[in-house]
Amino acid sequence: MKGVQILPVEGVPEVRPGDDLIAILADAARSDLHPGDVLVVTHKVVSKAEGRLVDLATVEPSTLAKSYASEYGKDPRQIEVVLRESRRIVRMDRGIIISETRHGFVCANAGVDASNVPGEDTVCLLPLDSDVSARKLRDAMAARLGVEVAVVISDSFGRAWRHGITDIAIGVAGMDPLADYRGQNDPHGYPMDASVLAVADELAGAAELVMGKTEGIPAAIVRGYEYEHVPGSASSSARDLLMPPERDMFR
Amino acid sequence: MKGVQILPVEGVPEVRPGDDLIAILADAARSDLHPGDVLVVTHKVVSKAEGRLVDLATVEPSTLAKSYASEYGKDPRQIEVVLRESRRIVRMDRGIIISETRHGFVCANAGVDASNVPGEDTVCLLPLDSDVSARKLRDAMAARLGVEVAVVISDSFGRAWRHGITDIAIGVAGMDPLADYRGQNDPHGYPMDASVLAVADELAGAAELVMGKTEGIPAAIVRGYEYEHVPGSASSSARDLLMPPERDMFR
Repeated sequence: MKGVQILPVEGVPEVRPGDDLIAILADAARSDLHPGDVLVVTHKVVSKAEGRLVDLATVEPSTLAKSYASEYGKDPRQIEVVLRESRRIVRMDRGIIISETRHGFVCANAGVDASNVPGEDTVCLLPLDSDVSARKLRDAMAARLGVEVAVVISDSFGRAWRHGITDIAIGVAGMDPLADYRGQNDPHGYPMDASVLAVADELAGAAELVMGKTEGIPAAIVRGYEYEHVPGSASSSARDLLMPPERDMFR
Repeated sequence: MKGVQILPVEGVPEVRPGDDLIAILADAARSDLHPGDVLVVTHKVVSKAEGRLVDLATVEPSTLAKSYASEYGKDPRQIEVVLRESRRIVRMDRGIIISETRHGFVCANAGVDASNVPGEDTVCLLPLDSDVSARKLRDAMAARLGVEVAVVISDSFGRAWRHGITDIAIGVAGMDPLADYRGQNDPHGYPMDASVLAVADELAGAAELVMGKTEGIPAAIVRGYEYEHVPGSASSSARDLLMPPERDMFR
């Protein structure tokens, strides 16, 4: 039957800084990965393998970090890391920081996260360039397994106006993250001007459904979704999922 | 293999006001629907069956609608319908209206949409109460097909800061729209304080992957996702997916 399948990639061990994530994922996904699949990987294992962990004992908080942390009972060192990972603060209130990361993502705490990280005083940052991370994984799967796939690096983001987090795409390789129906007509002949679908975000969210938060499944395979292939993986980017500043009504 | 499947519900004809959507969907999904599945239905067919269509020829635009429409080259009657469907304007600029609907959803144009609607001068509104619509569908599937499923009514919403729309849940029955991991620990023993997942939104987005915008597939079945059952369907609501005003930093 036509449809889409979402398969958990099981048997991935705890990933540590310097680990060869490509070898680990290639091993775990080897028999399951088919040409045309989308491999969705949570950024947490990518960040860990890339050494994007910070030992808070090494962090000297700034005055702003100290005062904000003390007002809301937070760890000033963790606030300091959030400020350092931000290029612009969007909202800062009630102990929460919503900021724009260097990548251009707007999210809570600039993506700095203490969950699913070994060590009480360690926090995890986003990959330096999650498109590059995605591209490396994609190229490696092609080289090692001989299988052309698309890769999405995911993270859990909150949303304005809605409760709860969902997984979205912060890195993309091998596919257009958007499905653009503009210029086409709906079945009634009406032009679909507003119909640009953020399918990479939907793929990331779909993958989350088989990952859970406690089961240690950091990757999933989506099969049967006909994405727009981007053969030169360099031209595929999660930055296409960012609202251009001049069109952003919520800066 | 463990995993989640997303299956398009095919063979649904064009739905018209007064049509028996329950009979239409029960017919189309009959052989495919298993206990524990999630039936995701785009609101468009629900709204049509419920007669939530407005003939713009019957709409007398207000002064505000006329001036805003004339400034941005829009149809003043359509702007008027958007204003009528709103209980609060969140942003109104550059020809765009972001508002809060009576249900509490914050979205573009209060969900008023001219695409996938027959007739050039007709627009489609959101269902009056999309949780009630979901509940009726769920109860009907149980009664007609003897199959207990969860139902999600979906719509395509834009997002702050991100380009492209994704499908999210505007009506839910039979399942908890959130998966709440608070109080549990991650594999490293760290408490997951921020981990409330909006799984109904992820299910809606996943379903969109098999629907497309031009193929006339208004429903999908998600199989293999272990949601939190809510037996008394009355207590399940997409309103749980709304950010409470007192915690909303982007009103």
